[in-house]
Amino acid sequence: MRASILGGAGYVGGELLRLLADHPDVEVAQVSSGSHTNRFAHTVHPFLRGRSDLRFCDPAALEPCDVLFLAGAHDDAADEVRELEGRARHVVDLSARFRLRSAADWREWYGTEHAAPEYLERFVYGLPELHRDELIGARFASGVGCNATASILALLPLARAGLIERAVVDLKVGSSEAGARASAGGQHPARARAVRTYAATGHRHQAEIRQELGDFELSFTATAVDLVRGVACTAHVFPTEAVSEKELWGLYREHYRSEPFVRIVKERHGLYRYPEPKLLAGTNYCDVGFEVDECTGRIVVMSAIDNLMKGAAGSAVQSMNLMCGFEEARGLGFAGLHPV
Amino acid sequence: MRASILGGAGYVGGELLRLLADHPDVEVAQVSSGSHTNRFAHTVHPFLRGRSDLRFCDPAALEPCDVLFLAGAHDDAADEVRELEGRARHVVDLSARFRLRSAADWREWYGTEHAAPEYLERFVYGLPELHRDELIGARFASGVGCNATASILALLPLARAGLIERAVVDLKVGSSEAGARASAGGQHPARARAVRTYAATGHRHQAEIRQELGDFELSFTATAVDLVRGVACTAHVFPTEAVSEKELWGLYREHYRSEPFVRIVKERHGLYRYPEPKLLAGTNYCDVGFEVDECTGRIVVMSAIDNLMKGAAGSAVQSMNLMCGFEEARGLGFAGLHPV
Amino acid sequence: MRASILGGAGYVGGELLRLLADHPDVEVAQVSSGSHTNRFAHTVHPFLRGRSDLRFCDPAALEPCDVLFLAGAHDDAADEVRELEGRARHVVDLSARFRLRSAADWREWYGTEHAAPEYLERFVYGLPELHRDELIGARFASGVGCNATASILALLPLARAGLIERAVVDLKVGSSEAGARASAGGQHPARARAVRTYAATGHRHQAEIRQELGDFELSFTATAVDLVRGVACTAHVFPTEAVSEKELWGLYREHYRSEPFVRIVKERHGLYRYPEPKLLAGTNYCDVGFEVDECTGRIVVMSAIDNLMKGAAGSAVQSMNLMCGFEEARGLGFAGLHPV
Amino acid sequence: MRASILGGAGYVGGELLRLLADHPDVEVAQVSSGSHTNRFAHTVHPFLRGRSDLRFCDPAALEPCDVLFLAGAHDDAADEVRELEGRARHVVDLSARFRLRSAADWREWYGTEHAAPEYLERFVYGLPELHRDELIGARFASGVGCNATASILALLPLARAGLIERAVVDLKVGSSEAGARASAGGQHPARARAVRTYAATGHRHQAEIRQELGDFELSFTATAVDLVRGVACTAHVFPTEAVSEKELWGLYREHYRSEPFVRIVKERHGLYRYPEPKLLAGTNYCDVGFEVDECTGRIVVMSAIDNLMKGAAGSAVQSMNLMCGFEEARGLGFAGLHPV
Repeated sequence: MRASILGGAGYVGGELLRLLADHPDVEVAQVSSGSHTNRFAHTVHPFLRGRSDLRFCDPAALEPCDVLFLAGAHDDAADEVRELEGRARHVVDLSARFRLRSAADWREWYGTEHAAPEYLERFVYGLPELHRDELIGARFASGVGCNATASILALLPLARAGLIERAVVDLKVGSSEAGARASAGGQHPARARAVRTYAATGHRHQAEIRQELGDFELSFTATAVDLVRGVACTAHVFPTEAVSEKELWGLYREHYRSEPFVRIVKERHGLYRYPEPKLLAGTNYCDVGFEVDECTGRIVVMSAIDNLMKGAAGSAVQSMNLMCGFEEARGLGFAGLHPV
Repeated sequence: MRASILGGAGYVGGELLRLLADHPDVEVAQVSSGSHTNRFAHTVHPFLRGRSDLRFCDPAALEPCDVLFLAGAHDDAADEVRELEGRARHVVDLSARFRLRSAADWREWYGTEHAAPEYLERFVYGLPELHRDELIGARFASGVGCNATASILALLPLARAGLIERAVVDLKVGSSEAGARASAGGQHPARARAVRTYAATGHRHQAEIRQELGDFELSFTATAVDLVRGVACTAHVFPTEAVSEKELWGLYREHYRSEPFVRIVKERHGLYRYPEPKLLAGTNYCDVGFEVDECTGRIVVMSAIDNLMKGAAGSAVQSMNLMCGFEEARGLGFAGLHPV
Repeated sequence: MRASILGGAGYVGGELLRLLADHPDVEVAQVSSGSHTNRFAHTVHPFLRGRSDLRFCDPAALEPCDVLFLAGAHDDAADEVRELEGRARHVVDLSARFRLRSAADWREWYGTEHAAPEYLERFVYGLPELHRDELIGARFASGVGCNATASILALLPLARAGLIERAVVDLKVGSSEAGARASAGGQHPARARAVRTYAATGHRHQAEIRQELGDFELSFTATAVDLVRGVACTAHVFPTEAVSEKELWGLYREHYRSEPFVRIVKERHGLYRYPEPKLLAGTNYCDVGFEVDECTGRIVVMSAIDNLMKGAAGSAVQSMNLMCGFEEARGLGFAGLHPV
Repeated sequence: MRASILGGAGYVGGELLRLLADHPDVEVAQVSSGSHTNRFAHTVHPFLRGRSDLRFCDPAALEPCDVLFLAGAHDDAADEVRELEGRARHVVDLSARFRLRSAADWREWYGTEHAAPEYLERFVYGLPELHRDELIGARFASGVGCNATASILALLPLARAGLIERAVVDLKVGSSEAGARASAGGQHPARARAVRTYAATGHRHQAEIRQELGDFELSFTATAVDLVRGVACTAHVFPTEAVSEKELWGLYREHYRSEPFVRIVKERHGLYRYPEPKLLAGTNYCDVGFEVDECTGRIVVMSAIDNLMKGAAGSAVQSMNLMCGFEEARGLGFAGLHPV
């Protein structure tokens, strides 16, 4: 199978390249970049040094392929898909533009009319833990919001059981979420040691969470912390009825038993008793843990992912595996580093 | 006035030394350390280099003084105060042991019988924003919990107005909170880039918040992030009635108008639109900001402090100023550094 | 005395504002910024919050003043000084353009003809440790190169004693050296945890070192490390004759005995036995230490500064104090923070 | 093949576990820890979560195996090898105690009599780039010093060509070098943002460099920087005769052409033009680059490794592959992450 990446000079594009370069069922055909055309990909993605002679091609030079990843796509150019869909049997669009199923939701959260609304129903939300069956053989899959993914996988078993009355999701996120483009807020002197709430309210990923998990009162706040890769989600859940930790064990185990990339982390010993994103850098895992507050009945659910992996390229490759009929976990076996 | 510090080799002791060394109304008489006796204080606290010839004395060599700071006190040795109170006109105990007014609360949260319960009522909780009048001329003041301080100052105006039905306090804290003693969890390879929830539930500082702010449903979770000094508090407040941002402006301005060390931070421009702890390193400020969630009515209150300053030594010196009749802000004028 | 700052929105401009705001002999008259005109200065420099209502003015609106700091000056616009010199009795230009005394040196290291060569001799190199007498009452002073300053103060006693045959200067520098402007290399994901040699050879600050310290074989390499403020200089010196540590103590003590901002740091106990830049953030100190290599006779001299202070704004204010007849250390008393 | 690890709870032991867990030719038989006996290995090494049920065994319970790694060995207990050698066909001792071939060198650098000098000649220094032929089928291999490895691979082509008259090696190292044991200097508040020269002179790894590279004047200084994994070596080489960059290209290419884990990094474009350790976390690469100083003829050679990999466990597994007849690069294929 030949896979190509449109917009491959960013962080997500690099992560796709890293995964596909070692994927036994896939060959990378082309990777494009408007600003780095003709440069060796390893000058931008140093993990390719000595391993790949791939060069960035002009985006206009894209040839037909089996799987096309859109990794540099702009949210306001969704009609690009009309032009591109003829070039590939499968399309995975990692931008936000096909994550929502409803044009009205798009309008509400993104503030514009959707440019290709006829595709909204054709795309599958690319999180296999939610849409595995639909992804098998699918032609179109969207990427996922990284913050949405951490939140969804933290809350999913509770939501499915109808146990959430109110959820307050407090996210701590790394700097790679903002992408590779230079910005004042991302400069090291400003961003190092930051604990900077950038979305106290109004974060767009709420739209995905609501769409996928359904109806409960959702609050959402995101804060940047000093970390490159990673999202840590603390979900404070006020349940519709009292739940014990033992019941939570049962619920989460039941729900995630067969998931290759979701682990329950709740240890009695050691430093790492709950999920921590830094342990997951480069992996496709989502770690999930929980604790019940005896005073208030609140359930604290903690989850952690690598935003570039489970929150972007990892879920995209996992989705591709399902779309193309490969073994679902293929190419996603990295276990992580410690200490790091 | 002669001030002495018992247990001066830790981070809080160092911060007291830093503040008192430049305080125009105070002279540091003695600083003790059991493990560094006779060493120059500057070998432990490098900001004293070239500025002070002070050496650590043996704790047993403590002489009478005007103000005594207990900075290395153990929570389980509260009866030490009986022996020490004769040595000083004013005592500021920065440990947890005299923060609570009720022996029953102590038992509930610290799990032991209080060793000197007859002093509980004699100590004033050392946060001038709450107890200014009582601190003036007081003989005994407690220190404050750093996480409690950030939470209390975030919530105080809402609590006084009876507007809090439920508050979910999500704290992000720096590594200096854990003190200078070597521990596995504090080693750089383990602690760097951590986003580690160390108290999902059950954090003891809740006892102080409840005591000082009264009755509402309080949830509290604390997460370690990669920062040395600082606490960032995100308080998700579900109000008893709908409140607009304009009303919040009025409420917070009214409440904090005359406070020398509380600032409302809510900017339209620039990177630093809400409170951020790294900007406050070395200062005695508590910055407070807020935003209303249009979807749910939730109020997001954000606050930031330096845990060693407003959350410990800074509030202690501010309290001392009140106890001894000095100008309240004396010695606390540092404005902070940027970038840092 | 009224001081104004041209180009006050960058890191050095901010540091000047911080120092001058607390300087007892100076009032800040104006601070300009082309890109932030009319904005409150505290939106860019958060340490001014609640302390100053200063707004950025248009650079063209500059009024006559007693001291003018050029903090945003471009190296290729040195002729600007002709227009500006009439507006102020004293001018301190913190750019590189008047640090060298020779137009030929400028051409060699900066690759252009100097635009105002007639001023080169009128400017004093603004490092009081080298040019105190000339700075007293001077009309023009240059700023200093931060890396040059750390190197010069490490080597000065040895150079003056004619003891350097060969010096290999290996610098480790923080991210604030690159300034506030957004760049790809300065983005947090790329810059965090970097150990990135950006000038293996050819660094321009060598020109200043050579000019100020005279003739010996100088090698110079600069590497970016994960730090915001600070320069650490490791100077490996091969001496013209064998020197003992005792002799070094004598030499350095003799040389720096009366310097208010140079400290010899060489401890037997504690963690901080040699100079470390993070301890100096916000201070005007240069700490210097040394050790002799018994195997090779090499002298290792270590120095540390805050690049924005002793390496820029701090030395500039110290120079201003001399130029204007103020006490030399006025406004530069901050002792630093620990831990930080 | 069955491999066991004695002392597997530290960082190097963890890294061995990580590598061996995915090694197709090896099965991990036992991993011991005196302090964590019976605990699941994943509580200490979180990358094993959901992948391994291995528990730490008592060191005394060690059974015979094919390959034995000593990962927690103490330098002063070299006689342990007498007792252990009967338990395994191949022994790789990652401590310092068998790196030197001469008991006199041991005495000079480690200050004690070697406890098992009869083994010194039986061990091969475990760096395949130096001793590939001897390692093939060898019974005993030592580990390597991480700082020595970075230095040796930077200098090797020049040393072999007899081109080094004087080398000044300036190392920047990460915190994992100090191991997992808690220490005051390794605590996050003290170690974060450190630029701390801990060995201005006298570093023991010099003994290995001298032994392996032979006779030239060597100076060596090591400085801790804010990084977990990684060593960056800047070798300032004064050559016996002038060398051009073109000649260096020839020399290094010739020398490292067939090495699977040494890459020459010297790019014209992009951020990462020279070796950087953070790009190598988890990999077995040593990246090497160079530049000639036109002014002085100095050659600046830069190298970077992951100290836990090429500087410890990676080279040990590479050595094991040679000792046991496996493909040399087996199990060492991880390419690294970016950004990280």
